[in-house]
This record gives sequence, C-alpha cells and structure tokens, in this order.
Amino acid sequence: MPSPVRLGLLGCGVVGSGVIRLLRDHQAEIAARAGGPVTIHRILVRDPKKARGADVPAGLLTTSPDDVVAAPEVDVVVEVLGGLQPAGDLVLRALRSRKPVVTANKELLAKAGGPLFEAAHEAGVDLHFEASVCGGIPVIRALREGLAAEKIDRVLGIVNGTTNYILTRMARDRRSFEEALQEAQAKGYAEPDPSADVDGTDAACKIAILASLAFQTRVPFEAVRVEGIGSLNTVDIAFAADLGYVIKSLALARERDGAVEARVQPVFIPKEHPLASVQDVYNAVFIKARAAGDLMFYGRGAGAAPTASAVLADVLEAARARASGVRVHAPFRLAAKPVRAGDDEAVKCYIRMQVVDRPGVLAVIAEAFGQKGVSLESVLQPKAAAAGDSAALVFTTHAGPEKSLHAALDRIRRLPVVKSIPGVIRIEEEV
Amino acid sequence: MPSPVRLGLLGCGVVGSGVIRLLRDHQAEIAARAGGPVTIHRILVRDPKKARGADVPAGLLTTSPDDVVAAPEVDVVVEVLGGLQPAGDLVLRALRSRKPVVTANKELLAKAGGPLFEAAHEAGVDLHFEASVCGGIPVIRALREGLAAEKIDRVLGIVNGTTNYILTRMARDRRSFEEALQEAQAKGYAEPDPSADVDGTDAACKIAILASLAFQTRVPFEAVRVEGIGSLNTVDIAFAADLGYVIKSLALARERDGAVEARVQPVFIPKEHPLASVQDVYNAVFIKARAAGDLMFYGRGAGAAPTASAVLADVLEAARARASGVRVHAPFRLAAKPVRAGDDEAVKCYIRMQVVDRPGVLAVIAEAFGQKGVSLESVLQPKAAAAGDSAALVFTTHAGPEKSLHAALDRIRRLPVVKSIPGVIRIEEEV
Repeated sequence: MPSPVRLGLLGCGVVGSGVIRLLRDHQAEIAARAGGPVTIHRILVRDPKKARGADVPAGLLTTSPDDVVAAPEVDVVVEVLGGLQPAGDLVLRALRSRKPVVTANKELLAKAGGPLFEAAHEAGVDLHFEASVCGGIPVIRALREGLAAEKIDRVLGIVNGTTNYILTRMARDRRSFEEALQEAQAKGYAEPDPSADVDGTDAACKIAILASLAFQTRVPFEAVRVEGIGSLNTVDIAFAADLGYVIKSLALARERDGAVEARVQPVFIPKEHPLASVQDVYNAVFIKARAAGDLMFYGRGAGAAPTASAVLADVLEAARARASGVRVHAPFRLAAKPVRAGDDEAVKCYIRMQVVDRPGVLAVIAEAFGQKGVSLESVLQPKAAAAGDSAALVFTTHAGPEKSLHAALDRIRRLPVVKSIPGVIRIEEEV
Repeated sequence: MPSPVRLGLLGCGVVGSGVIRLLRDHQAEIAARAGGPVTIHRILVRDPKKARGADVPAGLLTTSPDDVVAAPEVDVVVEVLGGLQPAGDLVLRALRSRKPVVTANKELLAKAGGPLFEAAHEAGVDLHFEASVCGGIPVIRALREGLAAEKIDRVLGIVNGTTNYILTRMARDRRSFEEALQEAQAKGYAEPDPSADVDGTDAACKIAILASLAFQTRVPFEAVRVEGIGSLNTVDIAFAADLGYVIKSLALARERDGAVEARVQPVFIPKEHPLASVQDVYNAVFIKARAAGDLMFYGRGAGAAPTASAVLADVLEAARARASGVRVHAPFRLAAKPVRAGDDEAVKCYIRMQVVDRPGVLAVIAEAFGQKGVSLESVLQPKAAAAGDSAALVFTTHAGPEKSLHAALDRIRRLPVVKSIPGVIRIEEEV
C-alpha cells in the first residue's frame, strides 16, 4: 500500500491556492485513493508577507528553494509558478534529487521541456503534466494511455478559453473584438495583458505538447505556426454563418507521410462539427484516431479548481508510482520526425475583398485566381456591403496548394480595381 | 523494461477479430509502448471450422478453455465472448490463475462483476474493463485516474449508439420509430434482435459500471430504473423541438445525501446542452465534477475497431503492471451506499394528452393537477392536433415530487374528458 505523501509546492498563486483548497475539501477521497494522507510540507513563495487568504497555512511558507526541491521530507514536487524561470531550474533540481514533479506549466514544457524529460528519465522519476493542457480535461492521460494502441492522424483543439469566449460573443451577440475582449477582462477570463491568449502563443504551447504526445516526437514551440484573432472582423463572422460555418481559433496538429504539422489560427469549421458548438470559455480537444475513430474531450480548460483537480490527479499517480517503485509513464519514445511548413498541401480558403463597384470587376479577379491555379468554389456579391463606389466580394476556394493561393492574392492585391483584402481565413472541411 | 506479452483470447467474434487486426496493423507502435512484441498465444472458439477471414490465424484456435485460462504461456487473458456464461466462469478461472484479464463485457461486469473484482483482488491481478463502456472513448480511465481527486455529482451518458441513431433519425428526418429502427438494422447499427438496445438494458449495464466507478460503490444492474424508447412518438419529438428541447435516451446516475440513483430513460434536455448535439451512432458521457466542472467525452461507442482500440490500451496497461509487479488499479474502494428509488425528488415533466375538444376541459385538468400539488409551467393547445371531437393538450410542469405527479396523472386519466395520455417524458433541466 502507498504510504503518506508529502508535497512541496513551488508557487502559491491561483492554482497553488486551488490545490491547497481541493486537498482540504476532498481530504477523505484523496487519502483513500492515495493509500494515506496527502499533506503539504513546504510552499515556496517570493514574498511570505503577502496576503494569501485563510486557506494557505502561513507556517509552511518558505523563500528557500532547497526547502522544497532538496528536502528529504518532500515526496512529490508540485510546480505551479508558471513561466520559464525560476520554474525551469527548480523543476530540474527536483528531478535530479529524484523527486517526481507535477507541473501545470505549459510554457516551460513547450519551450524547454526536452532537458526536463531527459532529466526525469535519467533520475528514474516521472514528470507529470496533465494540468499543463486544458485544465480539468484529462486529455493528456487519454493520449498517453487510453489511446496507447492507436495511430493518431489529427489533433484539433479549442484550447484557449479566452479567445473562445471572445469569438462566442462576437458570433452570438455581434460584439466587436474590442468589446468582447473588454467583457472577457471584466469577467476575469482574460488577463490585463491578454496578448498571449489573443496572439495564439498560449494555444501554441498547448498544441506543441499535445502533438508531441500524439505523434510521439518532440514538436517544439518554435515549430508551431501561429496566427492570432486580433484582426478578425465581425463582417467575416457573419459571412461565415451565411456560408454554414463557424469561426473558431483552432490549434491543429497532424502527421502525414511521416512529417508533423502544427499551427494555431482562426479557421472556418462546418457548423455541424462537434467543435463548432463549444461555446464561451469551454475547451475541447478533437482527436482523429485510426481505430477508435473521432473522439472529443470537452470541459473547462482553465481556472483554479479544474487545474487543481488535474494537478491532484497527477499527485495520486505519482503516489502510486512511488509506492510501487515503478514509473507510471511509458518511456517517451521520441522519434525525430520532420516538421512541415505546410506550403504544398491542400488549403481551402475564404477571402473577402473590397473592390471598385463596377461591372467587369469580378471577371478580372476570377481571371487572376485562375492564372495562379486557384479554383473557386463560390462567389458572393452581397448587396448590403456596397458603399459608395466600393463593394464587397466574398470567395471560397477549392482546396489547393497554399503557395498558389498566396501568389494569386499577391497579384489580386495589385489590381487597380481592388481596394483591400481584409479577410483571408482558412476553411477546415475535414476537421 | 516489460518483456514480450502473450495474449490468450476468449472468443473471436467482431471484437476479437478487431483485436487481431489492430495488433497486426499497429504492431510497431504497440511493441514500442509495451516494451516488446504483443503476440497471441491461443484463441478459444466454439467451432474451429467456422470461416473467420484471413486475419485470424487458424493454427491458434482451440476449443479447450485450459489452453487459454490455465496455460503458463498466456500472460494476459482477453475476454471478448460477451454474455454471462461461459464468460464469467472463464474470467474467474483466469483471475484465480493469477492472470490479468481484459474484458469488453459490460453485461458480465454489471450483473455479476462483484465476485470477479474480489477474485482479482485476492489474486493480486487486475481486471481491466475500458472496452466495456463506450468502445473507444477512454471514459473508464478518465473516471478512475483523471478524476481521481474529484467528488463527482452526476454522470449522464448517451451510451447506446443504436438508440441515439434512431432518435436522431426520428428528430432530424421525421422518421417513425419503426422506420428508424429498420434503417439502423439495414446499416448494421442494430442487431436483428434489437431489444437490449431499444429497451434500455444495454445502457443500464453501462451506467451501472460508470456509477460504480464515479461514486465508488457497487451499483448493481438491478438497481437501475430502465425505460426504453419503443413507445416514443414523433409527435412528442416535434413538441420537444417547439419547446426548446431534444429527446435523448439518457443514462443518468447521481449521488445526493450519500445515496446513489441510477436510471435509463428518454428525457427532454435543453437543445443548447452539449449532449443535445450528439448525433447518429455517437456516444458521449457528461460528468459534473465538483472541482473540474462540466466535462464531456465524445466518440464512437461501439464497433470492432474502437472497441479493439480500448481492449489493446488495457492490454498495454496490463503489460506495464506485469513488468512492474504492481497493480495499476487503485484498490476499488467500495463504500456501501444506499440506492435511491427517486420518488421524493424534484421531477419536471412533459405531458401530452388527448382530450375531448370542448370549452372548460383545460380548467378541469388544471384543477386536478393543482389538487395533487403539481405546479404547471406551461400549457399548449396546438390547433393542428385537433381531430374530430378530440384535441391535444401539452403541459410542462415545474419540478416536484414524482409521487405527486403520478397521483395527478392517475386522477386525470380517470376524468371523462380525458381520452388518453400518450406522452409522459421527464425534463432534465439541470443536466
């Protein structure tokens, strides 16, 4: 039977306090599953004088990292500091002291995870990271164990609650991007500095981790193509609905012909797709597996309680591994697979442009598309969008090489009849 | 490192052949994760002469159970026979020979699982059952490990693909129950004898297993209240849509005040609920967890490949447990919790009746509801539904005790102005 488990916490912010509360509220359940009480030995903080609420036992606070990462009384280290440093060094030291580590730190894993997993392997302990992606949704466990016998073709996720909230408000309630962002901030869904959410880097960290697990290779953060939602226009969201689509900021990864591709971008998805109905701050990860078929995991991707729930599930896993002396994780088999830029593949696109409102313009533009080998699926000339001598034109293309599309758009942008091309959004039909 | 793993298969039907195929197709992936090749030692079948396709190695077939459950060469037993016997005896013998068992047999676990889990515990081996519920969706693993630190309030599932297909066709394409069932049979989604699907007993087995895990108690099959979809009428499906609902056959379980309640029945759910958009043969399990919040797991709940994928994920888990000499499963903590019949709780209902078409009838019926303490939320007198001297009346009630509702309906049924009450369907608002 497992013995009592003593935790050392690195950090005591939103998630750390959540862990302390959950540990107290679910004491009996957790002890029964861990085989003994799970207690906190020490909590590393920068400022022990800071007000932290009644939940945090002040006597356990320390400013000395060694009290956590090197103390013999600490059985499992829980890293909830966030950011690259000092979290990275502390996790490394804990692993080298043969302490299993539970982390909620997506940025650390996506940008500097390699040496950490190697250190864990060398020390013969586990680095657990369920809480690093999509909070309370046990998708890491599903990829690692539930789909262990699978070949996975694609992973598609709505993995950032802030942007999904903003897009939901824009689509459902016709808010502008700025209004929706302000609401998200007022509700506490968005940080005062929302850039990591809005520009897609938060989602890029998560898809790098998911893709690494799904395709059993290391997909570094830098290899993820990232496009934010800051330039999305309500006009395009309305056209999306007219055409039978919903705009979502998707994190996508797939393996094709032995190469992996990962990106984050706003895309059109068919409105019947299960991901299309994921609203507000909810997250979902959609997986196309060869044998199991289409799977989706849905839930709250952030917040103190969901993330703390995932952290403690990992703590229980670490407790079991510790009692047995055997690592829970299958060794991370890391085949080196090339990462594809995606230029040569089948890209289907929505394009909205402002043109001079006179007969013959459409023919000129259609010819330019054709000359570059881009095949059009539909053209829309919305009446309402005409203003003065300017009119809107909306195109959807058939799937074709991305570079042909770019070449066509470069040419069209230079046509005298074209004023601007404010909307170019990829359509994911085969999500 | 784990050593090679030799499987003994009990049964070689749809799922068994799927396991053989998947093992062959994903050989490299599986070997890498198991630490060595996973091979099949023997396959127990009733009739070794039966045609089984090129996938099945005829040389491995046997009609002697001992070749599988007692052979020292067999490391893990995979039970894909289905049904109570001989599967139950064979699983028991395998466990007593200290062989871990992977089963896809929901009926066996729900109706006679107790002694099997005890035998596994005594022998110090695991009984793995991911494939017994919802095929390729790793929901058992999510409940057992991903939500290990959780208190779960409710589990709600669309866990039978056949009935969900039928209901989807009835709602979306206005098919009658009989037409939709025939289509399901033609497509191979329903058995020639569809009764276990249609009458809800298949779903009852699954919710008994899910509830046992979620609430850490033994919920026997017999304790599940079951109502099938055979008497559902397209008229009620249309009214559901008018009122903002969708009819789904839900398997529900919850714990309240230390008592567990489990049932399977067609219910109204709000059309915005994530379960409402689960279409066709897809399954989904929705979990309300105290800390993690609302979660949903979606995918293919049946079929050879998804189920085989779950079986092999369990085989890999068994391989890891075997290599370490340590059981993977946390011991099944089984608190004895009372199972509630549900009579005293808040039931909200949709009621459709045929009444005599004359003034004053509504008042008589409303009075009868009132006398029994049933509070009405809405009344609908659809014009189109009047025929001759007969008219339809549609009510929705506020939440109240189930016995008051039954008392009111008993009284109303005896009123001379009431011809029949063909539709009584529970409304689940707080799903």
